[in-house]
This record gives sequence, C-alpha cells and structure tokens, in this order.
Amino acid sequence: MIVIAGVQTPEEHIQAIVAVIEKEGLQAHVSHGSDRTIIGLIGSVEPKLAEHLRQMKGVENVVKISKSYKLASRDFHPENTVISIKGVNIGGGELVIMGGPCAVESAAQIDEIAALVKAAGAQVLRGGAFKPRTGPYSFQGTGVEGLIMMAEAGKKHDLLTITEVMTPEYVDICAEYADILQVGTRNMQNFDLLRKLGTCGKPVLLKRGFSSTYDEFLNAAEYILAGGNPNVMLCERGIRTFETYTRNTLDLSAIPVLQQLSHLPVISDPSHGTGRRELVVPMTKASVAAGADGLIIEMHTDPDNSMTGDGVQSLFPDQFSDLLKDLELLAPAVGKTFHTPSTIS
Amino acid sequence: MIVIAGVQTPEEHIQAIVAVIEKEGLQAHVSHGSDRTIIGLIGSVEPKLAEHLRQMKGVENVVKISKSYKLASRDFHPENTVISIKGVNIGGGELVIMGGPCAVESAAQIDEIAALVKAAGAQVLRGGAFKPRTGPYSFQGTGVEGLIMMAEAGKKHDLLTITEVMTPEYVDICAEYADILQVGTRNMQNFDLLRKLGTCGKPVLLKRGFSSTYDEFLNAAEYILAGGNPNVMLCERGIRTFETYTRNTLDLSAIPVLQQLSHLPVISDPSHGTGRRELVVPMTKASVAAGADGLIIEMHTDPDNSMTGDGVQSLFPDQFSDLLKDLELLAPAVGKTFHTPSTIS
Amino acid sequence: MIVIAGVQTPEEHIQAIVAVIEKEGLQAHVSHGSDRTIIGLIGSVEPKLAEHLRQMKGVENVVKISKSYKLASRDFHPENTVISIKGVNIGGGELVIMGGPCAVESAAQIDEIAALVKAAGAQVLRGGAFKPRTGPYSFQGTGVEGLIMMAEAGKKHDLLTITEVMTPEYVDICAEYADILQVGTRNMQNFDLLRKLGTCGKPVLLKRGFSSTYDEFLNAAEYILAGGNPNVMLCERGIRTFETYTRNTLDLSAIPVLQQLSHLPVISDPSHGTGRRELVVPMTKASVAAGADGLIIEMHTDPDNSMTGDGVQSLFPDQFSDLLKDLELLAPAVGKTFHTPSTIS
Amino acid sequence: MIVIAGVQTPEEHIQAIVAVIEKEGLQAHVSHGSDRTIIGLIGSVEPKLAEHLRQMKGVENVVKISKSYKLASRDFHPENTVISIKGVNIGGGELVIMGGPCAVESAAQIDEIAALVKAAGAQVLRGGAFKPRTGPYSFQGTGVEGLIMMAEAGKKHDLLTITEVMTPEYVDICAEYADILQVGTRNMQNFDLLRKLGTCGKPVLLKRGFSSTYDEFLNAAEYILAGGNPNVMLCERGIRTFETYTRNTLDLSAIPVLQQLSHLPVISDPSHGTGRRELVVPMTKASVAAGADGLIIEMHTDPDNSMTGDGVQSLFPDQFSDLLKDLELLAPAVGKTFHTPSTIS
Repeated sequence: MIVIAGVQTPEEHIQAIVAVIEKEGLQAHVSHGSDRTIIGLIGSVEPKLAEHLRQMKGVENVVKISKSYKLASRDFHPENTVISIKGVNIGGGELVIMGGPCAVESAAQIDEIAALVKAAGAQVLRGGAFKPRTGPYSFQGTGVEGLIMMAEAGKKHDLLTITEVMTPEYVDICAEYADILQVGTRNMQNFDLLRKLGTCGKPVLLKRGFSSTYDEFLNAAEYILAGGNPNVMLCERGIRTFETYTRNTLDLSAIPVLQQLSHLPVISDPSHGTGRRELVVPMTKASVAAGADGLIIEMHTDPDNSMTGDGVQSLFPDQFSDLLKDLELLAPAVGKTFHTPSTIS
Repeated sequence: MIVIAGVQTPEEHIQAIVAVIEKEGLQAHVSHGSDRTIIGLIGSVEPKLAEHLRQMKGVENVVKISKSYKLASRDFHPENTVISIKGVNIGGGELVIMGGPCAVESAAQIDEIAALVKAAGAQVLRGGAFKPRTGPYSFQGTGVEGLIMMAEAGKKHDLLTITEVMTPEYVDICAEYADILQVGTRNMQNFDLLRKLGTCGKPVLLKRGFSSTYDEFLNAAEYILAGGNPNVMLCERGIRTFETYTRNTLDLSAIPVLQQLSHLPVISDPSHGTGRRELVVPMTKASVAAGADGLIIEMHTDPDNSMTGDGVQSLFPDQFSDLLKDLELLAPAVGKTFHTPSTIS
Repeated sequence: MIVIAGVQTPEEHIQAIVAVIEKEGLQAHVSHGSDRTIIGLIGSVEPKLAEHLRQMKGVENVVKISKSYKLASRDFHPENTVISIKGVNIGGGELVIMGGPCAVESAAQIDEIAALVKAAGAQVLRGGAFKPRTGPYSFQGTGVEGLIMMAEAGKKHDLLTITEVMTPEYVDICAEYADILQVGTRNMQNFDLLRKLGTCGKPVLLKRGFSSTYDEFLNAAEYILAGGNPNVMLCERGIRTFETYTRNTLDLSAIPVLQQLSHLPVISDPSHGTGRRELVVPMTKASVAAGADGLIIEMHTDPDNSMTGDGVQSLFPDQFSDLLKDLELLAPAVGKTFHTPSTIS
Repeated sequence: MIVIAGVQTPEEHIQAIVAVIEKEGLQAHVSHGSDRTIIGLIGSVEPKLAEHLRQMKGVENVVKISKSYKLASRDFHPENTVISIKGVNIGGGELVIMGGPCAVESAAQIDEIAALVKAAGAQVLRGGAFKPRTGPYSFQGTGVEGLIMMAEAGKKHDLLTITEVMTPEYVDICAEYADILQVGTRNMQNFDLLRKLGTCGKPVLLKRGFSSTYDEFLNAAEYILAGGNPNVMLCERGIRTFETYTRNTLDLSAIPVLQQLSHLPVISDPSHGTGRRELVVPMTKASVAAGADGLIIEMHTDPDNSMTGDGVQSLFPDQFSDLLKDLELLAPAVGKTFHTPSTIS
C-alpha cells in the first residue's frame, strides 16, 4: 500500500503517518520528492488501516497494491482449475455447452428439450426452477417440483444439470437434485448465499453482477472458495451500460482478463448478454474465439410461449443444433476441442 | 401496449398478429401508415404475450405503455404516504434525519454516538449489526449482539432505530429490535428477502440498487407492498457510473422523479452517495433543496478507527451537529420544517 | 509515480527498471516487501516513461500520483478565480443566472425573451445560433444572423450574452458578438477548438463532456488556460448513465468536487442535466444548495413550438420568474447572495 | 410515432392532440382503452412536432417509431455496401486488416513498420499525424510532415493508408495524402467535421463515440452520407463503462447489430477497445468470430518508446504477424476469407 502526501505537507504530518504505520508493526518507506512525499507500506495491511491513513492530515491518497482475494487469484494458484463432474471436465481445454430453457415449465417440456440438448452435442442441461423476477406479479417458477423434473430429464438423457438457487434456505435441496448450482447476477453479492454455497459440496457457477467489476466478482468467488468449495466457475453474462438496444452489453474482454487474474474456468452467457436471439449465434462464436471454457445458452422448443418472457433470447432447437455444429469447426481454430455426437448417446 | 411492424410487412403477418391478440381476449387497433403498420392493444397485457408478439414474423418492436407496478404508483394512490412511527412522521413535510455509525461496534460506542445524534436534533439512530462486505476477510458485523446494543441506545436516548437486514432468516429478529428495517443496495433484488419483509410488520427503508433504474426500484418496492406492508421508504444512495472520483454518483434527480412516480417517502444517503466526508455537507443540503423527505448520514466519534473502513465518509460529531443547524435555516427556504433541539430531550 | 512489481519479480528485473528511471535523470526509491517490491519515482515524469515502465518485465502496475493539469488546479492557484464582465462577477459569491431559449429563432423572439430574462432578475442571456444536432435533417440554427439578433437583444435589455461555438472557424465572429463563448458537451475534447479559444480574448463556459471524468474535464480547461485565456467557467450539464428516464444524470457532486480541485467558477445546467421541465426547478435549487456559482437555464415563451425540440426542458416565463424569486430566499441560506430586480432596469 | 395519454385524460385533451396532428397534415388514429388512450400518427413526423405533443396536456409519453437516419439504414438499402479502394474490397466477405503505429514518429519508423505490416499480410497502414490528446502538454503529432511520410511508406510498400483528421480545416490535405480518413471517437459528433467529410471524395472510417448509442452512431454516419459520400465504415472501438481494468469495454455485439441495422462495413479496433496488449489477440479473434469486416490494430517496433504512451496497447511485430497467421485459420471457420502473403509483394 502506498500513502501519497499532498503538495508541501509539513514534516510533522509525515512523521505522524509513519508513527501510525509503525504502531501496526509495519515498515514505512518514505520517499521525499520535489513537491510531494510518498510512503510505502510493506506487510499485510488491514483495510481499516488504509482508511485510517486516508483520513490523516496531509494524506492526499492511499493506493492499494495487493488484491483482496487470494484463493481466487492466479498469483497463488498458477495452474488452471479443472472441474470434473461425472466425466465432464470444465476448464481443461474442452468446450462445455450448457443448454436448455429459461424455466422448467413441465415434465414434458424439460424432457423434450433435454433430448434435443443432448442430440445437439451439449453436456449440461440448464433450467430454472426458482426464478428471480423484477416484478412480483410475474411467473415465479415451478420450485421444488421443477427441480425434480429437471433431475429426471438429466438422468434420462445422460446430461449434467445446472439450476439457479436464490436464497440460503434452498441450497441444500438444490444441491440434492442438481449437479451444478448457479448464482444469478442479482445475487452475486448475496453474501449469506455465497457463504452457504461454500459448504454445499457441489460446483457453483457464479454469474457476474450486472454492474460488478472484475475485482468485486473475484471477491464474491472468494467467499465460496473460503468456505471450502474449490469448484467455482465464473460466468460473464453482460453488464449494464448506457446502450439499451441490447438487454446488456456482453463484456467479452472479461474472458481473457478473468483467465489471467484467476485460475477458475470462465463461462459465457450470450443469451442474457444480448437479450436478442439473432445476436446469440455471433456472440457465442465470439465467446469461443475469446477463449471461453464453456457456454450457457437458452434454447426452447416454443420460445414464443415461454412462461418467463425470456423466449425472445432463446434459440430454436435447430438454431442451437446448427450453432453447435459450427462450433465444431471453430473450436480447433482457436485451440479448443469440441465434438458433437451424431445421435443421442 | 403497441406492436410496431417492420417496413413493408405483408398483410398476412399483420393478420396473424391480430389473431394472437384477439385469442387472448384483447382488442387490436390496426393503423396502416405510409411505410409501417402499428397495432395498439387495449386491456391488461401479460408480459408473456408481449414476448410472444415480439418474436412473431413482421414485428419490429413492442412498446410497453403501462407501468408494471401498481401499489407503488402515484397513478392509483395520489396522496403522499406518511409513515408514522412513535410520533415521528416521515413523508409529511417535516425533514427526518437518521444518523449514526456505519457499524455498531460496542455498547459504549453506540451509546456515545446516540447521545450526540439526539443532541444534534436527529430523530433516528442508524447502525449496522449485520454488514454486507465485498470480501470475506473483512469485519462482518457484531450480529444479534449489535442489534441489542443499538436497541438499548435508542431507547435510552429516545431515538428510533434503523438497521440493515441481509437475509430472510434474520428478518424476524431484526424486526424485534429495530423500528425500521433497511434493505441494502446489493439486496434490492433479493426477492426472497423482499417477500419476507412484506409480512414483517415494520417499516422498511429500501435502498436503490447501485445500477437499478427507477422502474426496477419501484418494482422492488412493489414486492414489499404486495406482501401487505404499506410502509416503505425509497432511498437514493448513489449509482455506479464511469466516474470513480466519488464512490458513487448521487443521483439527486431521483428525488423529484420518485416523488412524481410514487407516493412513498424518499430519503437521501449522501454518505454512501459520495463516499467522501467533505462532500457529505454540500450534498445533504442539495438533497434537501431537491425535496428529500429525510436524510440518512453516517457519523462517528472516531471515524479514523471505524471497523468497516467507511469512516472516510463519516462526519465528525461537530460536523454533524453544525450541518443540522444549517438545515434549520435551509429547510424553510424550500418548504420543509425542521427543528433541532438545544439539549438532549 | 510508483512502479509496482509483480509477486516474486527477480532482482535483475528490478535493477533494469531502476536503470531506466535513472537514465531519465530521475531518482528511484526501492522498497522491498514480503511478496512485492515497489519503486517510487521522484521528479517530473513524462507520460512516455510511464508507459515504457508499464511494459517492462516484472512490472505489474504503474500508478500516477501527480495531476496532469496545472493551471486549472487549486494546488497551484489557491484563491478562487472571479471572472468580471461589465460589472457581473462570476465565482465571487454572488449567484449568476443565465437564461434564455435553446435557439435564437428570430429577432422578435429573442427580444421578447430577453425582456423577460432581465425582468426576472437574471444577468446573462443565453441562446444558440449554431446548433449541434444529432441528425443532419434537424434545424441547424440561424447562424451569424442569430448571433447579431442576440447581441442586439442583450444590448437593449442590458444583459450579458452567451452563445455556443462549434468549430474553430467561427470563434472570431462569435467573440465579436457575444460576451461569453460556450463549448458544448460534444466538443469538450475538440482540441483544435479549445486551442483557438485560448486566444479568443473572451471568457469561455466549458461544458463537461457527457461521459467525461473530472480529470478529463479539467484537462480540457487546461487547453484553454494554456493558450493564455484565464477566464474559464466549468459547467456540469449531466452525464450519461444507464438511467434513461432523465435525459442525463445531473451529477451535482461535480460542483463541490470541481471547486475543491480547481479555482474556476462552476455553473450548473439543470435543463440539459434533466431534460424534463418539471425537474428543472428542484434541480436548480439543489445546484444552488450544492454550492454552484451560477446556473444556465432554458426558458422559452412558447416551448411547445421551439424549433429545436428542446422545449420540453424549457421553463415557461412565469416558472422562470418564480424560480428566481425562490432563489432569493434560498441563496442566503447557503451563503450566497442573489437579488432579483422588481422591474427591468 | 405514438402519443400515449395519461390515465383518465379528458376527451377534450385528446381532441386537442388530434387537432394539432391534423393541422400538420398527418392522420391521427385514436384507440380508446380501459384506462388509457393511445394515438398513432401516420406520415413523416418532424422532431419539432414530437416535442410539441410531448408537452401538451394529457400526454404522458411520445414514442418514436421510425429511425431518424435513412441513408445509413438497411431498411432502404438492403445490400451490403462494399468499398473498393485500389483493389481492396471492404465489406464484401474478405477480412481487411489495418495495422501500424499509434503515431507517425519519423520517416524511418513508418517505413520500417510499413514493411512489417505488409509482410504480415495486412492491406492498410494506419498511423496518426494529428493526435487528439487529453492534455495540452502531451505530444500532439507530427502533422503534415507525418502525413507525407506515411503516404510515402504506403506507396513504397503497396499499402493503403488511413489517418485521423481532427478539424474541418485539415480535411483537404489529409484527403490529398491518405486513402481513408478516420474520425476519432471524440469527434463522432463534431458535426462541422462530418459535413466537410461528406464532400471530401475519400472513404471515411467513423469511430463510435465512446459513449454513443448505435442510433447516434448511425446518425453521425448519416451526416457524411447526406453530404454525398457513400463510402463510410463504422468502427467499434470500445465504450466507457464502470469497469476500469480495461481502457474501454469493447462492445462486440455492436458488430452484428450494426450489420443488421445498416449496410455499411463494420471494423473493430481491439487496441483502443481494450488498451492492453495481452487482450488484443483474443479480442481480435472474437471480433472476427462476431463477423467484423475488418480490424484496425496498433503495432509498433518499439512500443516501450512510442511517443504517445499508447505503446501499452501496441502489438510487437511478431505478435502481429502470428495473429494474422491465426486469422488465416479462423476466418474460414466463420465464413470469411483471408490470406496472408509469405513475402512482401
């Protein structure tokens, strides 16, 4: 950490700053310049001390150097984390595709879609049982019943399953039925939920808050890792900007940045990232070219009648299937492997 | 709702759109223009239908007209909501001041601050017992013990109390000890929490999500109102923008906008809204001039040693007291009443 | 400037960094920490060197300490700049009001409005002759003719005049006819225009770019100051955020921040800052309470028929007049002076 | 355009609205609903009328339907525009690469880089002679001398050239020496410059303003097209968001969106879009996968000593060359053609 003194700060203020630093058992390195003095702190610095210093007389700014997350950082864990679930490896060079409807609507719906997801070559079935909705009068999901329907469809079609959990109370039951638990964008900083997921025993896909920085995102992952759960995937799903033509602005730079700062796998969600079906195909390809370890894509057999209104961003089954065939060509051109099966396995 | 057809959409597509609308029991008003056709829908429209239409052939755009919140809207509740708690009226023309530390740190700390808050002329004591923190290694609050300490300080010094609740599980105990429950900015769309607060029996101060639109904010309030709790205050606390000099950008236009769209009282939080002590005084005054019904302001006797690092945005006691004296002058100049007592009552 | 080395950077890289710094004639202060080394640079640092260092092996980050603007900074000019124009002092404690239409439409229109502006108590007549318009098919202003009409109206009604200049070519003629030249938000970084204004001999009101940081804003002012023109006013006019209900988000924190970083007067523009007439009155009052040195407000006798479509944010004459009466009450409550005359002087 | 009346607007207000519309020679289609009335306007609507209506009694909102740009719109020009310059076709399915330094620094520098750009397989040499700089004390470019140096390097190495023009005064001389004129992000709404480019006789690469919407971007292109110049390329170069880790947020969705809304070629600038060399390679690939018609990439033989400080985002020559080889693999996988030559042609 570095303390920057204002122009012509008197020596007594500098000395007071040094005294506070040394009182905490840290070393202060003072550098006198032509019009400013800077003081470097060496050692592990409490956030509290930073704030104390920021408010002392003569201090113009305090600059943090170290990252506040450790377990999520590549600095201390140089190799990629590869999450292995029933033979599917996420983060290890093979492209992983998660597909399915926004919401689990019925046993027949999820079974039909699961068959198509499998046939297209994806490895994971997505579907929401508990749905976060902006207004209280919208469809709120099929709940535990939906969970069970999806688990059955996954088992029948030999697919992993992923579903969103919204509140600590439901973590256990979601962990019982799904292979991967998803934290939605609005819950990225629901800290009680993150803490509970740290001990849930299942891999977690953590979506970036729609206005969260990379640093905040990795700190949220740190909550789960610090609880003892090493299996966290980071998911870029679009951020909120001034542009309203797209539902969100899919920030694809997040993919290489997060892979550089962290060892955790990075997944892209072009469905929520754009909110428009016609953009899902090009942005899926762009995500793969940017280096994504996997994709989570909405697909629906009857998007015009989806119960959540998210149909507008869902691919039709043939679009989904065609897209995965295109990825088979694209993946090797950017150093990834991906194979779609010709029939349901 | 209005459906806008693309340039030169064939008549058969228009007819198909009309058929879908009429199937739902709604009327479709078709207007043929020189290069486009528009179709108006009259009646209560399900979000699902909007999405269905958006995806039909020939549809270029679907524009929503009605607001999705009802109970929070001034359209259906023209008079101001005035929330009365033990003789303090919020939303009725008298300026209400909530002051106190970011976090309750000890019984002695909260007692000392409560005395100063009361002496300065504020009506409500603020203080966090459960703290939402960006990283898992920061101080996480004093929990239920903190709640009890604050309740005692409030009772002793004749102040209402307000504290943040972060998860549904703790709503009941917070409601037992505090007069007002606060929802933090990161939880504005924690829908399970909002639902629980709808039945908690205590007034709620709902903070605007740091990247939430007015519409989303009012929909979040709608969750609480729809649960049966009419006593909701809306709190502007700064939004996230490209400018990083301030911690957030305090959006003061939110005050008159929310008062126009809704009947609920609007509170301003210049402490989080700026993140810098030296800006709290001018932005408090600006909030009052913009028409705020109340203010929530951080004050600390020893901000340099606050346990959360938010000390940098906390006023010193004498600054807080001087500010309230200034508001006594300012309030009548903008049509509000406010009186600070000369001694602790 | 500070160079931060990555975790476990080898000593030879540190030495290479030091060598580069010393080659430039600067001192390098090296502080070895537990897992990182930081190197402080003392002296005036070229931006080029910063970038060179940023790219050297072992460098994780380079942090700038000094501000890049000097003439605009309060560090080197502690007293407020007061701009005196024909007896009107801007920045000296008296509130200055600039009012008038978005565009000068005709001699009769600007004459009628000037009379009302004067009667209401304002000191400056605003009006655009050259109009920046988003699309090429919109009304583009009355040009030089408009300039002359406004100059005559100003002289007749004893008002200063302010008008926007969009391109270097027109600076001279605008400076001939107007008392203050305005740079619009889209031109804040039109550097050729700024350079030309540095030698124009007239005070300049520089509007903040709608997505410009305080630092960029002050650097833009620096261009004008560096050209030899000390009379620059900074104008906050709203920034672009995710919220679209208002045309822009008026960032009132900019007022105290800019007054702290700089000695230049700060003006607020609530008309463009909100884009909605009903918000202009509360946001004008909030601007004054935040400490603005002046206001620039759109007023039109027939806003429904304004030629630019900006009528929606223009006050009616009686609203403008009532607002100024209210400011007469408000100004002293926040330490400013302001007097409206009872008749045209 | 559609006018939406407020809840329970009296019939006389509706009639007044209709009268205003019909006075302009337009048809008004009135649809009475359960709690609201909407009025559709058919015909070409002046912006002024929209604003007039917005302010009438009883009007809650006015929604524009038609786009304000025509020449730039695919609605009225369904086929792609292909810009042919000396045998290079931009927008016709072949990937076009523009490479070179941020600034032309000397004849030797630009000659050396041009040779490398050509050898790597690019078709266009980029380089700035006039540089827009945030502060007045930074290097401002080599001006006309730089223009001439670059023209010579382009001719010698058989490359097209592109350079930025900042002010109308310099359009003619830039058009004399360069094959393509570039408008920088800060000048996207420098309307006098755009108008001048409409008659300059050379193709224009228009960069998106860093906070401009797609609609504003296409309106800016419309200025050039309306002036008689049909050869405009749209360039996505990153937008400003809350995330500061990257210099900008490269909005790759802009590529398919602009290609859908417009017929003009779309170029991506991953150098400014990320501001970090290590992100340029993945984001170039992502741009191609998203469907970009071309790329503009900074490359420098000695980026650590570049004169603008933009070296941090410039590729080294071997990185540039390797990247172009990778694109040869990637392009066909996404339906584009691209061939790098093995030697300088």
